[in-house]
Amino acid sequence: METVSENICFDGTQGVYTHDSKACGCDMTFAVYLPAQAKTGKVPVLWWLSGLTCTHANAMEKAGAQRAAAEHGIAVIFPDTSPRGESIANDDAYDLGQGAGFYVDATQAPWTPHFNMRTYIVDELFGLIAQNFPQIDTTRSAISGHSMGGHGALTLAMTHPEKFKSLSAFSPICHPHGSDWGRKQLGAYLGDESNWGDTDASKLVATHGWTGEILVDQGDADTFLDLLKTQALIDACAAKGQKATITMRAGYDHSYYFVSTFMPDHIAFHAANLK
Amino acid sequence: METVSENICFDGTQGVYTHDSKACGCDMTFAVYLPAQAKTGKVPVLWWLSGLTCTHANAMEKAGAQRAAAEHGIAVIFPDTSPRGESIANDDAYDLGQGAGFYVDATQAPWTPHFNMRTYIVDELFGLIAQNFPQIDTTRSAISGHSMGGHGALTLAMTHPEKFKSLSAFSPICHPHGSDWGRKQLGAYLGDESNWGDTDASKLVATHGWTGEILVDQGDADTFLDLLKTQALIDACAAKGQKATITMRAGYDHSYYFVSTFMPDHIAFHAANLK
Repeated sequence: METVSENICFDGTQGVYTHDSKACGCDMTFAVYLPAQAKTGKVPVLWWLSGLTCTHANAMEKAGAQRAAAEHGIAVIFPDTSPRGESIANDDAYDLGQGAGFYVDATQAPWTPHFNMRTYIVDELFGLIAQNFPQIDTTRSAISGHSMGGHGALTLAMTHPEKFKSLSAFSPICHPHGSDWGRKQLGAYLGDESNWGDTDASKLVATHGWTGEILVDQGDADTFLDLLKTQALIDACAAKGQKATITMRAGYDHSYYFVSTFMPDHIAFHAANLK
Repeated sequence: METVSENICFDGTQGVYTHDSKACGCDMTFAVYLPAQAKTGKVPVLWWLSGLTCTHANAMEKAGAQRAAAEHGIAVIFPDTSPRGESIANDDAYDLGQGAGFYVDATQAPWTPHFNMRTYIVDELFGLIAQNFPQIDTTRSAISGHSMGGHGALTLAMTHPEKFKSLSAFSPICHPHGSDWGRKQLGAYLGDESNWGDTDASKLVATHGWTGEILVDQGDADTFLDLLKTQALIDACAAKGQKATITMRAGYDHSYYFVSTFMPDHIAFHAANLK
């Protein structure tokens, strides 16, 4: 692991690091915010998964997470959204290939062997953080994300409850098996629909559920509502009796101005759950 | 004036606008954050001047100003840092020409007639805001900024106390007449040093002063300390008995991670002064 940069922020440290990823077969960049409380003890951690076209940097720079994380003494990890590099497969579309890993392990050419974002997050980066940041207590991990990253947070948490203890999402893709944000990418990465497995949050509520409250915020002026299919998640939670607070926020859109507005609430939620 | 975008943020509106500037002789872009309090009454306003290479967008996206502005019910205006366009004079250096207007009115070729950022901010944009945003009470204006924008805030406030009622700066260029961040640009824009006039914050403390407290935060790990010359401002305030709180912040650098950390304090300071 190599340090790219470290900046003091709200009396903690915002760092950017690279490492040679085995899961993705390339160098991967990620960011870690360590609050000041990590100087004197172990802190819980929020894993933040970003959306289409993003790198580790977008939320790190624009989500306003550090102020709230400093207040609550929680670390935040910002992984990249896919493998990257000139030798890595890609697509001209913004929503497939580099910047669009969808948090699954690809089985189809040309995406295998690099596109393994599920294994990358849940196994490799989890282990790397535990090894290199002893101040971070990975046994107290929360997960959240935005849009494609909200899909990642919901699906990774419900399929890996042994790793994640608190779950929220902003503007998540809620039903990718029924959306053009999902069918195209899962078909490309995983092939026939019979192989898509546990990659749909609304279906996972029915089959797996979540042993706690799921917190979701969604702007009602989001131009991508048809692709996100928020109602499918609302319906699934209602049908299963899943505890969830899914709030439609009047006037808010899909941008980081929306994310930054409700980030303090989500970080407070996770900090309380990880206490 | 045309609207480029408007996003709801912390229950207020973050807008971006363009207009045909007479002062700069080109289209100019600026951003305005209007807090929710502007829906029901007039709000005071903070003018934020950005640093070298920045546009209106950098602080708007990275400084975390909206959360604090929403809490205190204060609008924030983010102007651009220079005229821009293919037909506008420029220089290969990052610190001269487009993105580096230094908040002065140029008298020298090739910078005249476009580089008139002092007149643009203090006269033209001030008037445009008053005309187009009746919710903003420009008689309760504060001013702040970062680096070159800190220089702009200090010099515009001390030379225009009729416009600005509260003054702060982050990592300001404090003594441009004695720095390579200043001598080069003022020479280019204004010619011989005898024409530089009221463009040095440390000298202005002696000649004009400020009828209130000046709030300045500066990182002590800032790699540009030699160019900023913070000590010159500290010495000038001490010699004049100017009320000022100039704090060296341990470990902080020149980045927006530093700015975002102390933005809540500065916005609280301005809101209290403008009450």
